Order: sequence, then C-alpha cells, then structure tokens
Amino acid sequence: MQDVQNRVDKRGIAIQRVGISDVYLPLQIKQEQHSQPVMARLKFTVDLPMEYKGTHMSRFQEILTKWHTNPIGQAEIGNILDEAITKLSSNSAHLSMSFKYFIEKTAPVSGKKSLLDLDCKVSAVKTASKNSMPFTLAIKIPVTSLCPCSKEISAYGAHNQRSIISVKINYDGKKTAINIKDIVSLIEAQASCPLYPLLKREDEKYVTEKAYENPKFVEDILRDCVLALRTLDDIHYFSVECENFESIHNHNAYASHVEYLK
Amino acid sequence: MQDVQNRVDKRGIAIQRVGISDVYLPLQIKQEQHSQPVMARLKFTVDLPMEYKGTHMSRFQEILTKWHTNPIGQAEIGNILDEAITKLSSNSAHLSMSFKYFIEKTAPVSGKKSLLDLDCKVSAVKTASKNSMPFTLAIKIPVTSLCPCSKEISAYGAHNQRSIISVKINYDGKKTAINIKDIVSLIEAQASCPLYPLLKREDEKYVTEKAYENPKFVEDILRDCVLALRTLDDIHYFSVECENFESIHNHNAYASHVEYLK
Amino acid sequence: MQDVQNRVDKRGIAIQRVGISDVYLPLQIKQEQHSQPVMARLKFTVDLPMEYKGTHMSRFQEILTKWHTNPIGQAEIGNILDEAITKLSSNSAHLSMSFKYFIEKTAPVSGKKSLLDLDCKVSAVKTASKNSMPFTLAIKIPVTSLCPCSKEISAYGAHNQRSIISVKINYDGKKTAINIKDIVSLIEAQASCPLYPLLKREDEKYVTEKAYENPKFVEDILRDCVLALRTLDDIHYFSVECENFESIHNHNAYASHVEYLK
Amino acid sequence: MQDVQNRVDKRGIAIQRVGISDVYLPLQIKQEQHSQPVMARLKFTVDLPMEYKGTHMSRFQEILTKWHTNPIGQAEIGNILDEAITKLSSNSAHLSMSFKYFIEKTAPVSGKKSLLDLDCKVSAVKTASKNSMPFTLAIKIPVTSLCPCSKEISAYGAHNQRSIISVKINYDGKKTAINIKDIVSLIEAQASCPLYPLLKREDEKYVTEKAYENPKFVEDILRDCVLALRTLDDIHYFSVECENFESIHNHNAYASHVEYLK
Repeated sequence: MQDVQNRVDKRGIAIQRVGISDVYLPLQIKQEQHSQPVMARLKFTVDLPMEYKGTHMSRFQEILTKWHTNPIGQAEIGNILDEAITKLSSNSAHLSMSFKYFIEKTAPVSGKKSLLDLDCKVSAVKTASKNSMPFTLAIKIPVTSLCPCSKEISAYGAHNQRSIISVKINYDGKKTAINIKDIVSLIEAQASCPLYPLLKREDEKYVTEKAYENPKFVEDILRDCVLALRTLDDIHYFSVECENFESIHNHNAYASHVEYLK
Repeated sequence: MQDVQNRVDKRGIAIQRVGISDVYLPLQIKQEQHSQPVMARLKFTVDLPMEYKGTHMSRFQEILTKWHTNPIGQAEIGNILDEAITKLSSNSAHLSMSFKYFIEKTAPVSGKKSLLDLDCKVSAVKTASKNSMPFTLAIKIPVTSLCPCSKEISAYGAHNQRSIISVKINYDGKKTAINIKDIVSLIEAQASCPLYPLLKREDEKYVTEKAYENPKFVEDILRDCVLALRTLDDIHYFSVECENFESIHNHNAYASHVEYLK
Repeated sequence: MQDVQNRVDKRGIAIQRVGISDVYLPLQIKQEQHSQPVMARLKFTVDLPMEYKGTHMSRFQEILTKWHTNPIGQAEIGNILDEAITKLSSNSAHLSMSFKYFIEKTAPVSGKKSLLDLDCKVSAVKTASKNSMPFTLAIKIPVTSLCPCSKEISAYGAHNQRSIISVKINYDGKKTAINIKDIVSLIEAQASCPLYPLLKREDEKYVTEKAYENPKFVEDILRDCVLALRTLDDIHYFSVECENFESIHNHNAYASHVEYLK
Repeated sequence: MQDVQNRVDKRGIAIQRVGISDVYLPLQIKQEQHSQPVMARLKFTVDLPMEYKGTHMSRFQEILTKWHTNPIGQAEIGNILDEAITKLSSNSAHLSMSFKYFIEKTAPVSGKKSLLDLDCKVSAVKTASKNSMPFTLAIKIPVTSLCPCSKEISAYGAHNQRSIISVKINYDGKKTAINIKDIVSLIEAQASCPLYPLLKREDEKYVTEKAYENPKFVEDILRDCVLALRTLDDIHYFSVECENFESIHNHNAYASHVEYLK
C-alpha cells in the first residue's frame, strides 16, 4: 500500500508544527506524592522537515494511547516528546494538555473540606539537539474582588464579584516544577478573598467581612500578583491576567502583565 | 440529474424536523417603530412526510437569503414559515433565531446613555392547517443580586454578584408581541439592582447602595419574576431561571420555575 | 446567628427547582462490572415549599462532597436524591451530571485499540412519595456520514463528514439501565461508518470504502436510529438528533425526532 | 467624592494593559467602498503608569459609545486609540474587536448568491510617541479538505471534511489594509475546494468532483497558504493554522506556521 505521506515535497517549506488537536483522553497528572485522574484535551505536534509531504498522524495516537494509564509529570512529558521525535523522524515535538484540576479547600471557620476546580494547561516543547525542555504551566484561579472606589464613596456596601486570575509560568525545564497547589495559594492570597466551594454560615460571615476589609481594584490584584510571582525561582517568564466579572456591569474589568525574569 | 431526495422511503417514519442548523446570517429584527441589525444563528426545519427519502436542503438557504435584508417581526416569521411549508411540501415548519440585542440604558444619576447587550432567541412553529403560530421569546437579562444572609450576619458588607435571569415566554401567536425592551424592564426591576454598561462615580454610589438596600436570594428574584410574568397578557406559558455567579464560590446559585397560564 | 433562609415567605409560590449549578467534581461512573473516573459538571436542585424564604445551599455541596469518592450508578443517584429530600426538607430532588465518557474502540482491520470520547449526561428526578426514579441518559455519538446525492450525481467521490448523533433515552427507573457502551454500538451502526481514534493505513482504506458503500442522508441516519431505539426495553421515551457538519457548507444538516413508547 | 483611582501607588509597577473586556457592541466595519454592520466583542485597554493606583474604567465605555454609530476602519481605530491615550493619560492603548463578517459567495455552476460567515478579529496598538500603528487582522476561513492518502489507497471514495484555515496578518500600519474579502479569496484557493452556503445539485456535483481532483493533506494546505501569504505586501509577519475536522476521527488534524517577513 502506498505511503503517500513519505513522498518528497518540493515546496521547500519546513512546517513548524503538525499533528493532532482536540484530542480528549483520561490522564493521570503526577503532583509530588500523588497523582490525580483528569480529563484532558490535548494538542500533540512535531515539526515536519521540508523534504517530506506529510507526517504520520496515527503515530501520535499510538504514543498517547500507550501513555494514558501512567501518571504523567514533567519527566514523563519529556519521554513522550522524545518518543514523538524518534517515531516521527522530527527535530522537535510539542505537547499541550488542558484539564480541570481539583484542590482541597478548608472553609476558614467551620473547617469543612471541599474541592475547588481549576482550569489548568501544561505545554512543553522539546528539541532533538537539546537536553532542556522549557515548559509552561497556566492556571485560572477564581477569587473574590471587592471594589475600593465603591466602598469609599458608598454609605454602605461595596460591589464585589468573582474574578479569574490567569497565571502562566514558563520554567526553564531544569527542575521539577509543576506544583499547582502552591501557585494557587500564592495567587489567591493577592485577591480580596479566596473562594471556597463549601461555606457554612460562620464561614460566609468571615469571607464577607474579609473581602470588605480588603478592597482591591483589578490593578491592585494584578500588581500584587506580579510581586508574588517575582519571588518564584527558576522561571523564565510569567504572565498574569485578572478579569473581574463586575457585579454592576455586563462586561469585565481587565488587567494583564508579562515579565521576563532572565 | 437524479433527484435522490425525491425517492420513495419505505421505513414508514415521518420525520418531525429536518433542515439546517448553525446557520449564521445578518438580519434585521423589527421592534415596534424601528428595526435593529443583528447577527443571528438560525435553525430552520420542516417535517418530512414518511413517503419521501429526503428534504431539499438548498431551499432553506434560498428562503433565508431572500429574507435577510427585510426587517423581520412576528408577521414576517409567519411568512417565512409559510414559504417553507409550500416550497418543501411539508405540513409544518419551525424557525429559531438567536442573537444579541441591544437596548439603551440611562445611568441612574448622571443620565449617561449606553448600550446593554442581551442574548435573545425567538422560536416559532407553523402548521399548514392552522392560522395561529405559537412562538417563544427567550431573553437572558443580566442583573445584580445581593445576598440577604451575608448582609444580615456580617458586621459590614454583603456578597453580591452578576446574575442572569433567563425568561422564556410562549405566546399563542394571535397578537404582535415581540417586545424585548418591555420585558427587560419588567424583569430587571425584580433584582437587587439593574446593570448599566456606563456608570460614573455618582452612579456607582447609587447602584452600590441600592443593591445593599435591596438584598435578594436567588429564590426571591425568582418568585418576584414569577409574580411579574403573571401580569402579562396573551401568553400561554412562561419559564424563568435565575443563576447567580456567586462572588464567594466557583459555582452558581440556581432557581427555575415554569407556569402554564391557560 | 440568624437563619434568614428559614424565615416565612408570604408570596405563596412553591419553587420547582432551587440549588446549585455549574459545579465541577471528579466522580466515578459505575457501569456494570467496572467504574470510570470522570470530570463531571453538575446541577443539583430540590423544590422549595411556599412557606420557606430560601433553601440551604451549602447542604448540596456537603452531600456531593461525601459522594464524590464512591462509584455512582443508578442506585446511588437514588440515594443522593433521597438524601437531598431529607436534608433539605423537600418533596423532590433533581440531579444532572454531564461528563466525557471513554469507550475502547478496535480498529476494523489492524485491530489497534484506542479510546473514543463521548459527551454524556445523566439526569434523574426523585419524588418523596414515589419509589420509582425516572431518569434520562443522553449521549452524543460521533460518526461518519456520506451523502447519497453527492455520490449519485458525481463522476467520482462523494462529500462526507463527521456527524453527531445525540440520543436521549428516558427510562422508567425500575431497572438498572445506564449502559453507555451498548447504546453507542446500537447507534453508530446506523451511520455510514463509525469513528475510530486510531486507524492505520489498512483501516483507513476500510473506513473510506465502507462509508462510500453505505451513503446516508441525515434523514436516513435519523430513521434508522428511530428503528433501532424502538427495540430498547423499559424506556418511556427517546429523542434522537443528527447533525452533519457538512464538508461542503459552513452550516450543518439537521434532523430530529421524539417518540413516546408508553 | 473621592477619586480613589487617582491616588498614588507605591508598588513601582507600571501595568502593561488595563481596561475592559467582554464588551459587546453593534459596530460598522468599513471595507473599501462600503461598511458592514457587525456585532463585535471588544477588549479595550491602556497602560497604567506606575504612580497611579487605578485607571478610569467608565471612560473606555464613553469613548466606545461615541464611536459605535460611525463606520470604523483602520484610520478610525487610530483615532479611538489616540482618544484613549489622551483621556486616560496613558502612553499606549490597545483595541481588539472580534466579529462575524459576511462575504457574498457565488455558487460555481448555478451562479446562486449566498452569504458566508467568517470569524474575524482586528487588533491594534498605538503608542503616544509613534505615528505608526501596527495592527493584526485574523480570519478563520472554512474550506473543504480531501485526504490524498485515503484517495490513493481506497478502491473508491476518499474521506473529506470541513476545515478551518486561521490566518493572522500583522501589518506595519502605514497603509490601509483591512481587506477581508481579498484574503479569503487568496486562502480558500489553497484548499481542496471552497465552501458555499447555497449549492444546487449541479453545484454539488462540481464541488464533489473538484475536491476529489484536488486532494490535500493538512500539510499541503498549510504550505500552499504559506506560499500565498508570502506574496502580500507591507506585512510584518503572518501566522497560519489549518485544522481538519476529520470525518473518520473524533479529533482534528492540525498544522501551523509563523513567518516574519522583515
């Protein structure tokens, strides 16, 4: 049977990324001591040298199918990318995985436990000739924001709302670094108040008062996140976005910032 | 050229709805004195009698293409459905159109004007043998809700958030009735406070204090909407849903209710 | 501390559904011998008698938090709903869970195994005074459709595309019945060809030829699904929708049908 | 009334972007001779110098509200950004607008006219000290792709599907350049066949045969788009992505490429 993909291409264009997208798979994400089953949406690609007409799409699925029952951390992503480079005769490979990740939250007064869902995305690139594998961890962290202007000018009350702080952290790939829980703790401390899935009445009093005592503009949250992210080691760059789903408007207040650390 | 669709089908199944979906078209929605250009997503179907193998899909597009430059109100939807019934030799036709509709809001103190966007959906069904055309108008109305429990138990402040009230109103189709603006006014008066795209500082003070003076659970908003919707004439049934994007949680508070009026 | 929710309400409106929505949780779905970890989006509600001002939102989370580590099948959904009725002093409770579910597919020639993702939704309602619990299983099944008209009128080739067949099956709730895999097999046999995540070259030849030998309009697929679904036992009603993401248009061909069996 | 935003900030962080997001407005997009009403989703931001605590969010809405009835082309975007820089005492301003844009398509044999919808996004940045305004036009162009491998190895037929080619073109901003229709024509010529909303039977024969005569991998389409985009003048960089919604899989084939031209 003809291998049409293997035919010679004359256009002289090496394609930067080719592969499969919108792939859904159950995976296990490794985090320090344990791993968590997740439902991931993946994009998995390699570069295609200019002399080949096409890549072999089924091999991406074969690699993923083999890996999906193993806990996947930073080292395993490196192995997956190495396998892609070899099996697809490429110079580089790229994998991104988006998933909901759950962390346990403890209500501030009652101590009740519950699970908070976070949208996460891990992306990594490996090049055949290099040992290091730069990778990016992106997390969307939901928090409460309370408006300082509304508090100051109003006789009582202050508008507040759910906000999403989106951080993206690019590591140089020399150190094991996917630690979602620590980054969430670091970031949610910069908002007017963290969120909790389960709050009893005494907790609701606590978070209402805490947010009111701690008013922050979208700009305040962003700046405090920038200061917090600068304390992280071994990172190449970070970006942070904060979006407040304003309770008084049908649009959002928005701020964003990127910093290269070395 | 063969007309495969016209062949006889032997399975004995009259299909209730067949046609085209996910169709995007610029339309003009007629509202009393004026009309508004909108970008609509449509589903347009007919029934298929059991003896035919298939309908003629291109005719739906031909009908829509002809209509898209005309202002479309209730009467015109009736004409579109009549045309579908005739051109596709059917007994019934159904059209739904989803679009963002904009209404002008006036800030409560400064008087500044701005446009509020609303997700709307109009659906209608026409049967060959009947004159009437029951139709449904659905509107998602964004508002502010402020929690009575949080206000009562806290020393200061109260959590509040954007909420969406989704109303669906089914008219018997005897009277012209698509009046989006009136329904929005009726419904947003049931929340802790309406939303405004443009608020100056004096307006922000006003809406902050108004929401604080007017705390409402999702259940309160729902019940007050039910009372308000019962005052409408010529309607067959209504449903109302309220969803609060809780500022203290990453999930929503939700309530819904349906009532048949005759 | 005041229990504002428990106050008396005078509006005389018993609310049909109130609770929490857009809740994300990792769950285990029980299917015959085994269970599968899934990432579920839930809506969990009860009715609210007319004399109460509000429900107790945190109790929904407490019930879910307790259940999320247990495999959940039909019986367990019944237990969750019973617990909600008791803990929230209600007459009825409703739970819906949407999740991606994965089934193993075997490539038709090479025999290679891979996982196909399916969007599923389970909904159930329980009433305090009744033993039975009607519930609904909805599955979106992706398949290939190939156009009979295009095949017939063209000198070679035929347009084909991915289609989604959405089935919703309402069981009377007397028998254990959530069997996703069997329903998928039943339904995908009605398309021009099933889909497979992993196909080697010999498999690609097989599915290309199979679809070409088996051309079906959206109406054909729908009718054959209706015939197939009529063979199921113990069901109260079913609905089926087929949507073809036409390769020659930017919109879809669509058909739908509902049948009550008893 | 206090102007909290105007207070001095001591954190020493100049914020790169702050403003409003998820704003929906009806706009008119200017294209050469005419303009088209669209429903746009906007993000509108400025930088915030390090000495200010916050920006003035209502001024963004005031600027947009004033502009929404005027046809907006490249020059007008420049004026909007200049106004933001002035009114918000900033050094730079950024505007992005996403909208569906419609172009007329003529069926290849019957000559029937219909409207094809395209997802477009225009983004521009202006800096106070510079005259030029680099801007980016992104368009998602739906086309048909037909698999060369499937055609070659199968006795008859070939799998084909709808694909989306996403191009992003960054102009240096010296020349008027937003010409959506020309770019669509350039790009859709690189696929196996363009799409048409309205096709009569003779047209369906034409597009079926044309796609079969013109098989292309996702890599072929991408490379031919790269060659086509290199012919454009006055552009700074372009990116192109092609995603095939494989009719034989539930995932997509994907390729992407970026090129800097000067």
